[in-house]
Amino acid sequence: MKIDVQQAAEFLKANDDYLILMHASPDGDTLGCGHALCGALQRMGKRARAVCPEEIPHKFDYLFSACEKQEFEHKNVVCVDVADTKLLGDMKEIGDTAELCIDHHETNTDYAKRTLLRGEYAAACELMYEVINALGVEFDKELANCIYTGTATDTGCFKFSNTTPQTHLIAAEMMKFGADYAMINYVNFDLKTQGRIKLEQEVLKNIRYFEGGRVALISVPLALVQSLDVDSDDVGALANIPRQIEGVDVGICVKEKKNGSFKASLRTSKLVNAAEVCLKFGGGGHARAGGCSFFNGAEDAEKRIVEASCEAVRAALGK
Amino acid sequence: MKIDVQQAAEFLKANDDYLILMHASPDGDTLGCGHALCGALQRMGKRARAVCPEEIPHKFDYLFSACEKQEFEHKNVVCVDVADTKLLGDMKEIGDTAELCIDHHETNTDYAKRTLLRGEYAAACELMYEVINALGVEFDKELANCIYTGTATDTGCFKFSNTTPQTHLIAAEMMKFGADYAMINYVNFDLKTQGRIKLEQEVLKNIRYFEGGRVALISVPLALVQSLDVDSDDVGALANIPRQIEGVDVGICVKEKKNGSFKASLRTSKLVNAAEVCLKFGGGGHARAGGCSFFNGAEDAEKRIVEASCEAVRAALGK
Repeated sequence: MKIDVQQAAEFLKANDDYLILMHASPDGDTLGCGHALCGALQRMGKRARAVCPEEIPHKFDYLFSACEKQEFEHKNVVCVDVADTKLLGDMKEIGDTAELCIDHHETNTDYAKRTLLRGEYAAACELMYEVINALGVEFDKELANCIYTGTATDTGCFKFSNTTPQTHLIAAEMMKFGADYAMINYVNFDLKTQGRIKLEQEVLKNIRYFEGGRVALISVPLALVQSLDVDSDDVGALANIPRQIEGVDVGICVKEKKNGSFKASLRTSKLVNAAEVCLKFGGGGHARAGGCSFFNGAEDAEKRIVEASCEAVRAALGK
Repeated sequence: MKIDVQQAAEFLKANDDYLILMHASPDGDTLGCGHALCGALQRMGKRARAVCPEEIPHKFDYLFSACEKQEFEHKNVVCVDVADTKLLGDMKEIGDTAELCIDHHETNTDYAKRTLLRGEYAAACELMYEVINALGVEFDKELANCIYTGTATDTGCFKFSNTTPQTHLIAAEMMKFGADYAMINYVNFDLKTQGRIKLEQEVLKNIRYFEGGRVALISVPLALVQSLDVDSDDVGALANIPRQIEGVDVGICVKEKKNGSFKASLRTSKLVNAAEVCLKFGGGGHARAGGCSFFNGAEDAEKRIVEASCEAVRAALGK
């Protein structure tokens, strides 16, 4: 059942003993949402616990101060920024019993008894900001840090086209409540490990250009990743690099996975629809970012995704 | 004479034939200010021309549509985002006749007959937003692009500690008027030339760490810069890289200049005051960013700035 912000707030006020689930491969938005909601409920005198099926990267440690660790038997499950319970890993079954889901993914599978969805919001934290206001909980520095984190990280620090005036207005509000935005932005956008610097250097050494520089490809062999002290965040960020190069309309990153498959990630200019290219290989995504997998070695993967990308560029240019 | 926004607007309303000067090594803030003011005055039926003493990087071409090219003999000079007429290069003498200066640098030398200064503003464009409102000119997409550009570029896209709630509120306003923020952010923050990618790679190859990784140094030989297709923007951006590495409190970039000198740029964490370190060598700057010059070769420059940086780290740690 689709509900609005007021109805979500009424449900949260009327009940207690909340287990809040955040998605696996946790990012700033799900973590910001989960800790903000947990902190808000605790400030209302309720019991609440925010849990993630996977380890939370240390850079997000600052979010933990928004709520206390509470042990109790949960009565109500709330999923935040979770489009599908498949994204809950080992906690999928618990997620399937969700009383409430608060999310901003158009692709939400409507698995919860009640779903508060705003597909047009850049971040689920923008929606959580409205929920916390509707709960009547006053913001403080810790809650503000949570909400700021989600709005900043899901928009590339207000850089991407999903950013709206509302995103900025919420950021401004959170800064007024003391959000430590310079620290948050430093750890999320500027800070790189020495391993990541090395990784970026190595993959850039072998960057290849096609279609007169409009298509660029980097490859990430598993052995390289394993030889460096890097985490999934570091590897994930590589996908954005080729498209940042002047003249590149399709930036491709082909990454070797532990199971022997090859994951291609595409980032595109307006010229090419990334999801359409990836769909040809059973993948998908959005207009400007997509992904698909290949199972016959690096050479095959690279050849096929590069050819499809070059074709898409030529088609767009009417060649 | 220090004046306020209303007085600046009154002066601009009462006069005509404006030559608007923007500083050399033009950035998004001075260019945004200059083109916004020029466009606003033209929309009021006045004659105005925005001029920069140096070539404007092509990535800013989109700003030009905010105003028309007008030829006329100027009667009033207005400097925008210009702290000192020394920053006007060949146009210094014209700048010295300025009737009005609109700026946000605490260090403004008060050279103009009237100075509208807001040292606490992150961008001069925030102040220009207030001036245009006081002039009663309605914003449109073109003016909004100018103001958005200054607020975004002077804050690292709302990332840095100089950002205020007001910065976000103005960005939100400019987005409502149609600012093409995704394009502006892409060209200013994501886009890199192939030359820049190569340059970054080459200097990172030889990064050196000191003081247990708290001090990091990169060197930029002139021959390397000249061997690649890069511009001053590309070279300038290198200064930010070492400090982005995890554990680094002082990031140093030593760059060989055409005149044989060596320019050291420091970026620091809260642990070390960059300006204080640079002051020892006749330089200066801000708490988190500073610079100074050396004249006895690369080795001497690097040794001295690294030693001073390590000393500052040890002093801060009470060693």
